[in-house]
Amino acid sequence: MEDIRRLQAEFTDERDWNQFHQPRNLLLALVGEVGEVSELFQWRGEVAEGLPGWTEREREQLAHELSDVLIYLLELAEKCHVDLPQAVLRKMALNRLKYPASKVHGSAKKYTEYQD
Amino acid sequence: MEDIRRLQAEFTDERDWNQFHQPRNLLLALVGEVGEVSELFQWRGEVAEGLPGWTEREREQLAHELSDVLIYLLELAEKCHVDLPQAVLRKMALNRLKYPASKVHGSAKKYTEYQD
Amino acid sequence: MEDIRRLQAEFTDERDWNQFHQPRNLLLALVGEVGEVSELFQWRGEVAEGLPGWTEREREQLAHELSDVLIYLLELAEKCHVDLPQAVLRKMALNRLKYPASKVHGSAKKYTEYQD
Amino acid sequence: MEDIRRLQAEFTDERDWNQFHQPRNLLLALVGEVGEVSELFQWRGEVAEGLPGWTEREREQLAHELSDVLIYLLELAEKCHVDLPQAVLRKMALNRLKYPASKVHGSAKKYTEYQD
Repeated sequence: MEDIRRLQAEFTDERDWNQFHQPRNLLLALVGEVGEVSELFQWRGEVAEGLPGWTEREREQLAHELSDVLIYLLELAEKCHVDLPQAVLRKMALNRLKYPASKVHGSAKKYTEYQD
Repeated sequence: MEDIRRLQAEFTDERDWNQFHQPRNLLLALVGEVGEVSELFQWRGEVAEGLPGWTEREREQLAHELSDVLIYLLELAEKCHVDLPQAVLRKMALNRLKYPASKVHGSAKKYTEYQD
Repeated sequence: MEDIRRLQAEFTDERDWNQFHQPRNLLLALVGEVGEVSELFQWRGEVAEGLPGWTEREREQLAHELSDVLIYLLELAEKCHVDLPQAVLRKMALNRLKYPASKVHGSAKKYTEYQD
Repeated sequence: MEDIRRLQAEFTDERDWNQFHQPRNLLLALVGEVGEVSELFQWRGEVAEGLPGWTEREREQLAHELSDVLIYLLELAEKCHVDLPQAVLRKMALNRLKYPASKVHGSAKKYTEYQD
C-alpha cells in the first residue's frame, strides 16, 4: 500500500496536479469511479464469485475501475492525514469485539442487525 | 494489503459470513460506506488538506469510514478474482503513458480533458 | 415535482439554510442518501419486484431514503439552474431515438451494449 | 412526476426491458448515474450557484445526467412499490417537525448536528 501511495504521489507531483487534489475533489473522483464499477454490475442480476460468464475484456475493465477506486481512496486518506493502513487494523480489531464469532455465527438476521 | 485481506478473510470465515459476501452485496456495502464518508464532508464547503478545524472525533470517524471502504474494496476484488495490488501497478503504468508529464503539466484544462 | 421544489425552498428559507446548499454540498448529501438506500439492499442477494419478505418498517425506511434522494436531487438541479422536468422529457425523447424498439427488443446483449 | 413515470414505463415495455429492471439492477444503475454527475464536479473545487464559467456543453451534459438519476430513481421506487410523490410529502412534513425553524435558524453547528 505504501508503494502505491508513493508511486501515485510521484505521478501527481511530476504533472503538478496536487493543486487539483483537495479532499472533496478526490472524494468526488472516488464516487465517480465507484459509479463506473457499478455500471459493470448493473444489468446482470446476481453475480457469483469469480464472475462466471464475464469476458476477458470485462474482467480487465473491472480490474482497472477497482484500481482507480483504490488509488483515489489512498490519496484521499493521505490528503486528510489519515494513516489508512493503521486505521484499518484498528477498525478490524474493533469489529472483532463488536461482532463476537460465538454470538453472530452464520445468522443472516443477526448479521443484518449487527452490521452498521 | 495482503495482511488486511487475510485478516478480513479470517474474520468472515469465523462468523460464517461468506454466504453474504457475493460480489453485488459487497459492492452495495462499498457504496454505503462511500455514502458515510460523503456525509462527513457534505455541509462544509471546500475542505483543505489536513482537515483544519475538524475535531478529534470527526477525524476518528473519517478514519473508520475510509477503513470500511478499503475493507469492502479488497474483499470485492477478491470475490471477483481480481489481483488488486497487481492491477493497481498496471493501471498506474498505463496512466503514465496516457498522461505524459511533459504534455499535461499543471494545466487544469488539459487535466479535465485528459482524465477519464 | 414543482410542489416539492417549492415546499423544500420554503423549508430551507425559513431555517436560513441556503448558505449550506451550494451545488457540491448538495451533491455530497445526495451521495450520502444513495448510500443509505444501498445499505437497505446490501446483504440480501437478489430482491424481487415489490420487495417480498421486507417488514413494514424496512419499507417505511426505504420510502424515507428514496424521498431524501429526490429532495436533494431537485434542489441540486435548482441550484445548478437546470430545469429538471423539462430536461427529463428531452432525455427520454433522445433515448427513444437512440434505442429504437424494433432494434433492441428484449435482447440482453444489445441492451448492455446500447445502454450508456 | 406521474407523466415521467408513465412515459418511462412505456419506453421499457416497448423494448421488453422489464426483465432487466429488478430493484438492485436499477439501484446500481442509479449509483452509476450519480457517479457521472460527480465526474462533472470532481476537479473544480467549490462551484457557485448557477455554475458560473461552465460551458453550454457542460450544462447540457449535467442536465442529461441529472435526468438519468431521476429516471432510475422513479423506476426504482415503482419496482419497490413505493409511492414516491406521497412519501416525499410525508418526509418533508416530518422534517418540519424534526428541525423547528425557531430552533435551528441559520446555525451551521446545529445544522450539522440536526441533519441525518
